[in-house]
Amino acid sequence: MINQLVEKIKKTGAPIVAGLDPMLSYVPEHILKKSLQEFGETLEGAADAIWQFNKGIIDCIYDLIPAVKPQIAMYEQFGAEGVRAFQKTVDYCHEKGLIVIGDIKRGDIGSTSAAYAAGHLGKTVVGGSRISAFGEDFATVNPYLGTDGIQPFIDVCREENKGLFILVKTSNPSSGEFQDREIDGRPLYEYVGEKVAEWGAQHMGDTYSYIGAVVGATYPQVGKIMRRAMPNTYILVPGYGAQGGKGADLVHYFNEDGLGAIVNSSRGIIAAYKQEAYAQFGPLHYADAARQAVLAMIADIDGALQAAK
Amino acid sequence: MINQLVEKIKKTGAPIVAGLDPMLSYVPEHILKKSLQEFGETLEGAADAIWQFNKGIIDCIYDLIPAVKPQIAMYEQFGAEGVRAFQKTVDYCHEKGLIVIGDIKRGDIGSTSAAYAAGHLGKTVVGGSRISAFGEDFATVNPYLGTDGIQPFIDVCREENKGLFILVKTSNPSSGEFQDREIDGRPLYEYVGEKVAEWGAQHMGDTYSYIGAVVGATYPQVGKIMRRAMPNTYILVPGYGAQGGKGADLVHYFNEDGLGAIVNSSRGIIAAYKQEAYAQFGPLHYADAARQAVLAMIADIDGALQAAK
Repeated sequence: MINQLVEKIKKTGAPIVAGLDPMLSYVPEHILKKSLQEFGETLEGAADAIWQFNKGIIDCIYDLIPAVKPQIAMYEQFGAEGVRAFQKTVDYCHEKGLIVIGDIKRGDIGSTSAAYAAGHLGKTVVGGSRISAFGEDFATVNPYLGTDGIQPFIDVCREENKGLFILVKTSNPSSGEFQDREIDGRPLYEYVGEKVAEWGAQHMGDTYSYIGAVVGATYPQVGKIMRRAMPNTYILVPGYGAQGGKGADLVHYFNEDGLGAIVNSSRGIIAAYKQEAYAQFGPLHYADAARQAVLAMIADIDGALQAAK
Repeated sequence: MINQLVEKIKKTGAPIVAGLDPMLSYVPEHILKKSLQEFGETLEGAADAIWQFNKGIIDCIYDLIPAVKPQIAMYEQFGAEGVRAFQKTVDYCHEKGLIVIGDIKRGDIGSTSAAYAAGHLGKTVVGGSRISAFGEDFATVNPYLGTDGIQPFIDVCREENKGLFILVKTSNPSSGEFQDREIDGRPLYEYVGEKVAEWGAQHMGDTYSYIGAVVGATYPQVGKIMRRAMPNTYILVPGYGAQGGKGADLVHYFNEDGLGAIVNSSRGIIAAYKQEAYAQFGPLHYADAARQAVLAMIADIDGALQAAK
């Protein structure tokens, strides 16, 4: 799957992933009203609204980018109905040829991680049948429990040709509270990154490993260090746009081959119509605004990479 | 909610939580067959089987214990249908008067943690309605992202009278890989525990905080240290039974008032009928075996606490 991701990044020229993290407040009135009229002010109504919202966006951007990253929390908050909307979103993105990174940040003791891995990346066994429950292509995972919480995910990735992005340094303001704590003079995230590179070395695609890392756009110095420390690790970079990251900050997350990183933007794309720069589209054309925001992001990152050459 | 938990522990004399972590392989043939006949070899069939399995167990143990802890991974592996079985399990436990600890180990950047917190512990806003999606009483959370990943959970707990158990030292074999790394001579989990105690001090019930900690039964020395370091923190102790923890190992997780800890057993209770000690019950009476295992666990822990007095 990492090979496919690299191929698609080369083909689109867009090392970009659109974060499908819909909040009800992003959903334009005409969509929300219709869903709530049909299903009432219920979790089902909310789930339908975010699914319709997603569909509009996917239809308008799928040809520009290699991948999407739905954040499952935004669906799970609507209960089982929301989780079904997550499933439908994954399926629809696959129909449109997009690679799906499930932003699930799961991680638990071995037997429990195995259940998450089966459900999200592999197959669940029911009687004599093996059934794909969610079927994302990649998943984000949390490393706090150590190797035996990660290994079941790696095993499923190997069997099913899938991949991971393991949290190393997250994009949020207080990420340093534990991640930056120094151990023998080096921060914890470096130890986690080393471990990711170690796991990754045993699970290689053609040039990159299918065990990747998450390093936030909001800490460009960390990106630079971790890029060098993990040359064959693909880095998923959240925090672009709404969280403050800019293209120029991100060049050091990439290798000299122009690969090695994929940058996520969520709000900046899917709620673009709410920004001044794209206000002319209005709520009715929210998906066209998203397309423009993707084009601008591609130009920003490409420009920064060209300038750095 | 922490006051209610303490009250129920006193009333039942059982500082015990039953982990409702059903695997299909635990479900006796007569239940599994019925569900798969009705719904086919589908995720729906599997979800129905684990729900029926749970119901049988809950009916047989609800009067003995204060709380249950469903592990959401075991449901999520069956997709949206599985998540609905999780919801039904939470609701049914509430009907039976049990406190529900959602073992979800979520944790993300602020806005995302807020969505998890709303869905699992609070209310989700849909139009003019505020709807409870899952409605657990407590949730487990992962601290790797630091304060701003935890704060949204704390905010919802304060508003909704709920509680948390934050991972400090987990029960799995490789938990030490990152959690034991020494920072200025002290392991990371101590820093996390300090932070938990700090958050907890600002969010107190009558004698204990509603911001609790997870410390695994498999590291009794750590339990002893963390008990002293966080005197007002309730400790959720996984890893009893199947993972290797015994009553005698656990006395130091408790305060002198006999409170301060609640010990989880999952497989050891719900799959008791598969153990030699309870084999006489057979698959048909799996729930009676679970009841016997709960009684034995109460006796084991009570005996250890009495012996330590």
